[in-house]
Amino acid sequence: MISKTIQTAIDSLARLPGIGPRQAARIVFSLINGSKKEGEELARAIAALGENIRTCPVCFASYEMTRDGQKTCLICANPARQKTALCVVEREMDIETIEKTKLFKGVYHVVGEQIDTLAKTIPPTVKRLLLRIAFIYKQLPLSKQKEMEVILATNATVEGDVLASYLEKHIAPLGVAVTRLARGLASGAELEYADTQTLLAAFENRKPRV
Amino acid sequence: MISKTIQTAIDSLARLPGIGPRQAARIVFSLINGSKKEGEELARAIAALGENIRTCPVCFASYEMTRDGQKTCLICANPARQKTALCVVEREMDIETIEKTKLFKGVYHVVGEQIDTLAKTIPPTVKRLLLRIAFIYKQLPLSKQKEMEVILATNATVEGDVLASYLEKHIAPLGVAVTRLARGLASGAELEYADTQTLLAAFENRKPRV
Repeated sequence: MISKTIQTAIDSLARLPGIGPRQAARIVFSLINGSKKEGEELARAIAALGENIRTCPVCFASYEMTRDGQKTCLICANPARQKTALCVVEREMDIETIEKTKLFKGVYHVVGEQIDTLAKTIPPTVKRLLLRIAFIYKQLPLSKQKEMEVILATNATVEGDVLASYLEKHIAPLGVAVTRLARGLASGAELEYADTQTLLAAFENRKPRV
Repeated sequence: MISKTIQTAIDSLARLPGIGPRQAARIVFSLINGSKKEGEELARAIAALGENIRTCPVCFASYEMTRDGQKTCLICANPARQKTALCVVEREMDIETIEKTKLFKGVYHVVGEQIDTLAKTIPPTVKRLLLRIAFIYKQLPLSKQKEMEVILATNATVEGDVLASYLEKHIAPLGVAVTRLARGLASGAELEYADTQTLLAAFENRKPRV
């Protein structure tokens, strides 16, 4: 009964993360009954992603192709960013979250969420990270080498912990300092509602008042 | 930091029903990191909605424009469908749900979800329904007029009940029989988990065993 054009749109939408067939149908009918302009804009915006967006060959984040043929993302291209501080994230979106704090002045590296840490060989995404770290490290003058730091900014989840341990094991032999984001109470959290793991971390990592 | 092309796509997606800015961002990055073909297909599918889909001027459901310039949806155009049984639904998607039962042989009418039943004048969507009922009714031979039935297939929610009462009030003066979908236990429902309203309806509408 549902026409081919509608069914194709529903199927395409249902393939997106977090959208089921019912929501996909709801969206399609809202696009049909909404303004024609809205649908056109959406189609154009999605098509533009494929045309204008490239993956940075240095950090593997996405960036917008500009007319002057920029080869890397803006952060990697920025000479003001400290190349000796490398923040490793699971997902590209995490970069944006960290950038919002305006605290970190180094560069990033996206390893991706789905890494098979049980595979016999090192996955290509991790290999690229190790090569990059080794490359930066070797280029540094000896006096600067001990300043180099790899910050593992993986999620505070079981998967994030497994990934961090895996990366640490492989980065450590390179002679580079590896750190992880601190664990503890989230700002605004009430003790009453904190889970045991969080409380344990908050106790273990407690700091003397200055 | 997020590039313009990416932000535009996120904004466009976040305007869709049930999608928040975070999920929109997740979708955009999955499109960027996924296959280029997937994004192209999605863009094309959405654009096709605007190009190929029209609203049926009889029942206000969507239908696909074919080359032979079809003027109404397939159900309204089908001479086998009983024009004296008019099923009124809130949303276009409900038609598909009812069609799946293969039980109903009549035609449909979409009134839309958001109807201001408190407005002083009758909303245009309801006016169109009343005109359509009156039109069908007047065309029928006298002997057939008492066969005409308007089935209010609104949701079994407070909003659906309000809408049904409102429609009933306006349709009744036309001399047409108005019915509503039965209320009771959903198939597979356990009494233990049924809410009071459902149980009340199930008791009130109980049927003698044959």
